[in-house]
Amino acid sequence: MLGAIEAGGTKFVCAVGNEDGQMLERIQIPTEIPEKTIPMVIEFFKNYKVRALGIGSFGPLDLNEKSDTYGYITSTPKPGWGNFPFVETMKKALNVPVAFDTDVNAAVWGEFLFGAGKGFNCLYITVGTGIGAGAVIGGKRLHGLSHPEMGHIFLRRHPKDKFEGFCPYHKDCLEGLASGPSIKKRWGIKGEDLLEDHPAWELEIHYLAQALLQYILILSPEKIIMGGGVMKQSHLFPSIHSEVKRLSKGFLTLPPSEIYIVAPGLGDDSGILGALMLAKEINVGNLTN
Amino acid sequence: MLGAIEAGGTKFVCAVGNEDGQMLERIQIPTEIPEKTIPMVIEFFKNYKVRALGIGSFGPLDLNEKSDTYGYITSTPKPGWGNFPFVETMKKALNVPVAFDTDVNAAVWGEFLFGAGKGFNCLYITVGTGIGAGAVIGGKRLHGLSHPEMGHIFLRRHPKDKFEGFCPYHKDCLEGLASGPSIKKRWGIKGEDLLEDHPAWELEIHYLAQALLQYILILSPEKIIMGGGVMKQSHLFPSIHSEVKRLSKGFLTLPPSEIYIVAPGLGDDSGILGALMLAKEINVGNLTN
Repeated sequence: MLGAIEAGGTKFVCAVGNEDGQMLERIQIPTEIPEKTIPMVIEFFKNYKVRALGIGSFGPLDLNEKSDTYGYITSTPKPGWGNFPFVETMKKALNVPVAFDTDVNAAVWGEFLFGAGKGFNCLYITVGTGIGAGAVIGGKRLHGLSHPEMGHIFLRRHPKDKFEGFCPYHKDCLEGLASGPSIKKRWGIKGEDLLEDHPAWELEIHYLAQALLQYILILSPEKIIMGGGVMKQSHLFPSIHSEVKRLSKGFLTLPPSEIYIVAPGLGDDSGILGALMLAKEINVGNLTN
Repeated sequence: MLGAIEAGGTKFVCAVGNEDGQMLERIQIPTEIPEKTIPMVIEFFKNYKVRALGIGSFGPLDLNEKSDTYGYITSTPKPGWGNFPFVETMKKALNVPVAFDTDVNAAVWGEFLFGAGKGFNCLYITVGTGIGAGAVIGGKRLHGLSHPEMGHIFLRRHPKDKFEGFCPYHKDCLEGLASGPSIKKRWGIKGEDLLEDHPAWELEIHYLAQALLQYILILSPEKIIMGGGVMKQSHLFPSIHSEVKRLSKGFLTLPPSEIYIVAPGLGDDSGILGALMLAKEINVGNLTN
């Protein structure tokens, strides 16, 4: 039995399952302060004999294994979670090996193994409370100096857009202009309640297409998977594809929209399934070492 | 004996060498039309018994081995080189296996194996006649849907800059605003002749730093190597590092300038040495298949 946590800004999804990616039990726990949330998480896993735990977490995270603060959530503005030693806490509580990566790297890992990204160099982007992306390249999750922070790239302003932006660091980076909260702040209505012909979508499509164009020029993914609350509006997919083509001015030859820019194959389970497979990876690693 | 070609827009560097990266002989041939240049290239290699050939070429290229036009230079505006079957031509002439990649992927490969990028997830950017970049991630050169085209990302305009840009596709993408020819067109002076206090550099630093910031947010490289004619101005390195930090607004923690944004460890030989190692790779692959 393996354990998995998808740690998000509003909820923790916890699950147990097997090495084939079959989930046997799962619960959701609201993300409050760690002192409230974490004991409930531990309680859940104590009911099962898990051999390893995989965590996909909101960030930023310290993923450098040589660092003193490896396994921490680092500088998040989220109350109580700054400098939280996530890996250490779970290791102590459960006494099992713990694998740790970003929420979006867990999601892209799930999609690469079982979903829409199967076998591809692929990118998973979530557009919701925040914007983030993870990538699998050559069968490995993309890390480097740190983990990518693709939600914070800079864009050119749409000429009609006077909104100052909502990112606490950069104001009008991608996340600051196109996340769920920025849509709500700009228009006074939640993204999910906006009709398909609302002018909000012209801006949203323009910004997401600009971001995708940068990702394509830099990473050249074979498949782009878009998830998160905002992307439940399925009319966005073909429109974003057209806008990427328009912005690239004939420079790029892209596969057709329906096979290139797609919804997650695993629905809302990309992250938790990916986290389960992180547990598998560290469990295998542990046995062979 | 292995053969290597670094095919650039103004010259071809051809070399023969061994598997350890020692070059035994090399020549330069001007890049004219293929009918003039290629026979001289073939002539050079016919003097040696090469077992395999590695090519790092200006692009765009077709690198998809399943494609009918694999090994072609595709849509270049360079007279005579559009739809040129580079790999096929060389295979027929020399009757050896031919490895093929972009000029910048060859350069980053050389730097990764022998130069400033040794052992790192690294990025090589050339800023010269054009702007392009290649990356090594997890010990492999980055490819995907196609090869990256990092020189064509979009930037925000510097408020002082009224120059329309020089890219035939996008006008004011990175290459259109910051390549050698765009400096010359904007200021009427070649980059190499501009003094260190010329106002050109404020713009150049701003644009290159913006590009690096996007690359860092998306790829998270552990080492950034900057080559090409414009980067011979060594005062640019620390200034670009400072500007990346300023633009990131405290969001990124970067290693110090002198170890993070650096000149090529192989000087002008990154590309030709990388191409030689491409030949090694395909030769080994051939023996074991």
